[in-house]
Amino acid sequence: MAQFKRIAVVGAGLIGGSILLAAARRGLAGSLACWSRSEGARATLRGFGVATVFTDAAAAVRDADLVVVTTPVDAAEETFRSISPGLSPGAVVTDAGSVKGAILLAARRLPAANPFVGAHPMAGGEKAGASHAAANLFEGRVCFLTPTGAEPPAALESVRRFWRELGTVLHETDAARHDEIVAAISHVPHAAASALMLAVREQAGFQPFAVGAGLRDATRIAAGEENLWVGILLANAGHAAAGLRDLERRVAELRAAVEQADVATLRRLLAEARVARQDLDRPA
Amino acid sequence: MAQFKRIAVVGAGLIGGSILLAAARRGLAGSLACWSRSEGARATLRGFGVATVFTDAAAAVRDADLVVVTTPVDAAEETFRSISPGLSPGAVVTDAGSVKGAILLAARRLPAANPFVGAHPMAGGEKAGASHAAANLFEGRVCFLTPTGAEPPAALESVRRFWRELGTVLHETDAARHDEIVAAISHVPHAAASALMLAVREQAGFQPFAVGAGLRDATRIAAGEENLWVGILLANAGHAAAGLRDLERRVAELRAAVEQADVATLRRLLAEARVARQDLDRPA
Repeated sequence: MAQFKRIAVVGAGLIGGSILLAAARRGLAGSLACWSRSEGARATLRGFGVATVFTDAAAAVRDADLVVVTTPVDAAEETFRSISPGLSPGAVVTDAGSVKGAILLAARRLPAANPFVGAHPMAGGEKAGASHAAANLFEGRVCFLTPTGAEPPAALESVRRFWRELGTVLHETDAARHDEIVAAISHVPHAAASALMLAVREQAGFQPFAVGAGLRDATRIAAGEENLWVGILLANAGHAAAGLRDLERRVAELRAAVEQADVATLRRLLAEARVARQDLDRPA
Repeated sequence: MAQFKRIAVVGAGLIGGSILLAAARRGLAGSLACWSRSEGARATLRGFGVATVFTDAAAAVRDADLVVVTTPVDAAEETFRSISPGLSPGAVVTDAGSVKGAILLAARRLPAANPFVGAHPMAGGEKAGASHAAANLFEGRVCFLTPTGAEPPAALESVRRFWRELGTVLHETDAARHDEIVAAISHVPHAAASALMLAVREQAGFQPFAVGAGLRDATRIAAGEENLWVGILLANAGHAAAGLRDLERRVAELRAAVEQADVATLRRLLAEARVARQDLDRPA
């Protein structure tokens, strides 16, 4: 028997679309429903043929026992407000937002009868939209869960089983710690790649014909959709700004060593960076 | 008939080793010779079984009509000095260094009877050493040539044919313009990736278990060997430092927009970076 009676995905782009495809393939629910604000995305979702597609968010969540919110971070509050009238009492709500502190606050908008357990699967990429969705998007990826301790144990267990069934590896922590982690490994690198792309493009020597894999890889994430990232960076502004300040300092250190022909400092900094980068590829 | 009587590769790591493998496969020369400072590299090169391996650089270049210098940028002057006694009159010298202005100056050490044509194949990567050499390393890659106009036309034509035969796409420009271009597309990105790795590693939230493809790709080139890169960055210090200063300014702009919750500026900067990055993947 399917684990859920009905799963509703609210805001179905890359992440939401992939959830629908994965849930359908694994038979996680008796039925699937979804909503997207955009007619283009709804057409793509209808094309998948796995879920009933709604034009009204409250209607989409009706009769669902699990609701997965996959709208952009800065739309979370509005989404919670718009689905609330349709939620069945006891329906469990989870999400996939890249920031958890702000979403936990926004989730207070939900009816008291609907427990919320924040989640963040570390999947996705610079190609957004339901048209890039894939059933295997989550396989082997880390998924953060940020329970508060106040949710009913059965709700937490449901959300755990749901994300585990999609193939993710769960990591539970509190929202504040989650936001600190993703600032370091995702939000600061994203802004750094954007800054590098902007700086490189304005150099007198910038010649796209000669660009190789190095610059391409270093800036790949800068191709991410800006509206998504404005929301993420602002919702995690404290940690993101602190990390960017450290980056400014590190770039200045390297630049000063180059200007002063300070071989010892330059070698030490590049060697520390090399070792740290090589450590990322070492099995834990 | 082979294009060259004998090709000698001086300083055979990733680039030099790959040249030997490619030249052997394509039958570019009647015989191949090479030299490396390190006994480990020499053992690897002997293992290739395609070239006579010398422990003395001057002996390695004897009787060669084409000599390819592939030592690190900051060793160029010393290499030119050490091979000079062995060079046959008329033997043409080329190189593969990432910086061309400084190498052109160093090449004045060569005998007047040995024309030099600077080259820079845009190949390689963070895995250095002859053990990573590959015969197809150069295929489809841009190779800069930086003739001065003072070299005999036949010498320039020889060097053109050599690099073209290895599969590269030639781009001729002067040394100063070359150095400006590679600062933008290679040297600044390398230092930027190192700075990002250093900054990320010192964040309280840095958790290697959660690191995904985004940060991995953004910092991949930071795994490059530091001694090589100290030489490159210092030999191109003016352009590299100027680019890093622009990067500092761009990071500061993004950080200020995040701190001030300046949605319009943040969106504009991220959108400009996205478009510039997407343009890199557009066919020219």
